[in-house]
Amino acid sequence: MSRYWSPIVSRLRPYVAGEQPRIPGLVKLNTNENPYGPSPKALGAIRKVADDRLRLYPDPAATQLREAIAARFGLTAEEVFVGNGSDEVLAHAFQALLNHDLPLLYPDVSYSFYPTYSLLYGIGAIEIPVDDKFRIRLSDYDRPCGAIIIPNPNAPTGIGLPLAGIEALLAAHPDAVVVIDEAYVDFGGESAVPLISRYPNLLVIQTLSKSRSFAGLRVGFALGHRDLIEALVRVKDSFNSYPLDRLAQVAATAAIKDEAWLETSRRKIIASRESLVRELESLDFEVLPSQANFVFARHESRSGASLQLALRERRVLVRHFAKPRISEFLRISIGTDEECALLVSTIREILAV
Amino acid sequence: MSRYWSPIVSRLRPYVAGEQPRIPGLVKLNTNENPYGPSPKALGAIRKVADDRLRLYPDPAATQLREAIAARFGLTAEEVFVGNGSDEVLAHAFQALLNHDLPLLYPDVSYSFYPTYSLLYGIGAIEIPVDDKFRIRLSDYDRPCGAIIIPNPNAPTGIGLPLAGIEALLAAHPDAVVVIDEAYVDFGGESAVPLISRYPNLLVIQTLSKSRSFAGLRVGFALGHRDLIEALVRVKDSFNSYPLDRLAQVAATAAIKDEAWLETSRRKIIASRESLVRELESLDFEVLPSQANFVFARHESRSGASLQLALRERRVLVRHFAKPRISEFLRISIGTDEECALLVSTIREILAV
Repeated sequence: MSRYWSPIVSRLRPYVAGEQPRIPGLVKLNTNENPYGPSPKALGAIRKVADDRLRLYPDPAATQLREAIAARFGLTAEEVFVGNGSDEVLAHAFQALLNHDLPLLYPDVSYSFYPTYSLLYGIGAIEIPVDDKFRIRLSDYDRPCGAIIIPNPNAPTGIGLPLAGIEALLAAHPDAVVVIDEAYVDFGGESAVPLISRYPNLLVIQTLSKSRSFAGLRVGFALGHRDLIEALVRVKDSFNSYPLDRLAQVAATAAIKDEAWLETSRRKIIASRESLVRELESLDFEVLPSQANFVFARHESRSGASLQLALRERRVLVRHFAKPRISEFLRISIGTDEECALLVSTIREILAV
Repeated sequence: MSRYWSPIVSRLRPYVAGEQPRIPGLVKLNTNENPYGPSPKALGAIRKVADDRLRLYPDPAATQLREAIAARFGLTAEEVFVGNGSDEVLAHAFQALLNHDLPLLYPDVSYSFYPTYSLLYGIGAIEIPVDDKFRIRLSDYDRPCGAIIIPNPNAPTGIGLPLAGIEALLAAHPDAVVVIDEAYVDFGGESAVPLISRYPNLLVIQTLSKSRSFAGLRVGFALGHRDLIEALVRVKDSFNSYPLDRLAQVAATAAIKDEAWLETSRRKIIASRESLVRELESLDFEVLPSQANFVFARHESRSGASLQLALRERRVLVRHFAKPRISEFLRISIGTDEECALLVSTIREILAV
């Protein structure tokens, strides 16, 4: 620490992202990337605008992208906010909507960026334990609070919540913003977007990084009542007028419009997930029921840490969290069928030693 | 305002960026964009990586880009921070380095995002008046303060400070971070980068939006002692792990390496600026001495607001600030020689009415 730092800096606990090694030939199943490339139409759109127009600032409001997202979800552009990845959208949401006198609630086993944001913005937060099967029990959120944020499906468990439960939560907390973080919803979850017209306290956040395979482009978005969106816009315009560059805006717009590509991609991943679950269970793993593009699994006798290390030595990356309650688990992203097969044969090899 | 907003939201005064109209055929001299396209090598680099690799997250530390910037400035990569435009870098600097018990100081006539950031992070700031010739008088900063931020050259005046003055300021405030915002330095200013090795309290911020003509790409960077950079990294990793997408990282790296392109571009702009200043003076404008890619000028009899409006009606956009002390001025970006000639002839036409 340094005398030049603002006092907050030494109190932060920065988020540690999954490893992004630059080693070729790795089977990379550690950061929930999509094994299939993004929409070819979106890639073509990038190549078409990679020219002298990049000398000009982008549209600060990303109007065309917001209109495309609005059309896709049956909303208006005023109900859509876009940002530089859903992490930026989440950061703005924490600052703009989740900082109240009463505490913010989120699950104890959840996206580990939430406590980081809470510290960054000085938000008092309470972690609500998931149950012994790692399920979010929505009745536990029935307490005074300033706001609630829940991923659905949850990460890193992959477990989804039924829409009826989300609706009951919204109805039970009319004075609190409820953020549903749907980063993984396209792989089998039930989206809360249809509830937006009836619940002005609902904000849904999605990303192009997973089901639309654009982790390398950094685009996320929030959907909700225009009053909630306005709060996000006010914070964004106090932080960075132009968060989305020209390339990201055109590529994301094309990706949102390419519904056929999305359908194909998510179906393949769901099918691969179901096979992988069966394979892992046959190797004595307990696999939590996943609606995401990853599975969360623990072996009946081998520790999570040792398995992750052994896999890494054999050039297969998976994610392990050295954290209470979940340290025996591995979070394994769904790759291609070939990658899943290689993962399974590598695990078999490790277990045979 | 809404009951769902965090209390801070209704206190914000969001920055209003220069208009980014989507009307073709405008002469756009309002947001200090470079009239010449970016480095063709950088554009080629974008097209080369616009493929399936975009499914993968970018390098969260932007290592290759930071190494290229470090090499360009004779620094190490640990002395370089990169962000999604220099606005994001500035935002992180305000939060990480400029928030202290003693007030932050900056000029009253300056980049109008500074008061916005101060409100966003609850920073007590004092605006130090520029003198009656709109010059920053560094002796006025000789007072107790937590930190100082000064653009050099200043915006929207274009007036530069000598390096000796900056060094004296750094030496006079060994306990305060001094940020020099060098967005426009490549058009004739004196950069403070050579002082970094001797002043651990110096942070220099630059952008690729102006001299490198990549406003549409959103890349900025900060240079300084590794302790200052570490504070920025800690805030960034508490906000968004991946602020720069893959396309921006490769394009910015190529742009930083294309020194010949930079030289050509800035020389042309400086030459055009000098001609434009003479033309404007011949039309009875007072033009402040500019070291930037814009000029700040007021007419002896026509108001700034009326001139801006008359120009806009004739499809020429310039920037006018309806603010104390500078409301009679126009800020005019340097375009191509053709655009400058059209601006001059349009002004002549307006003045003749």
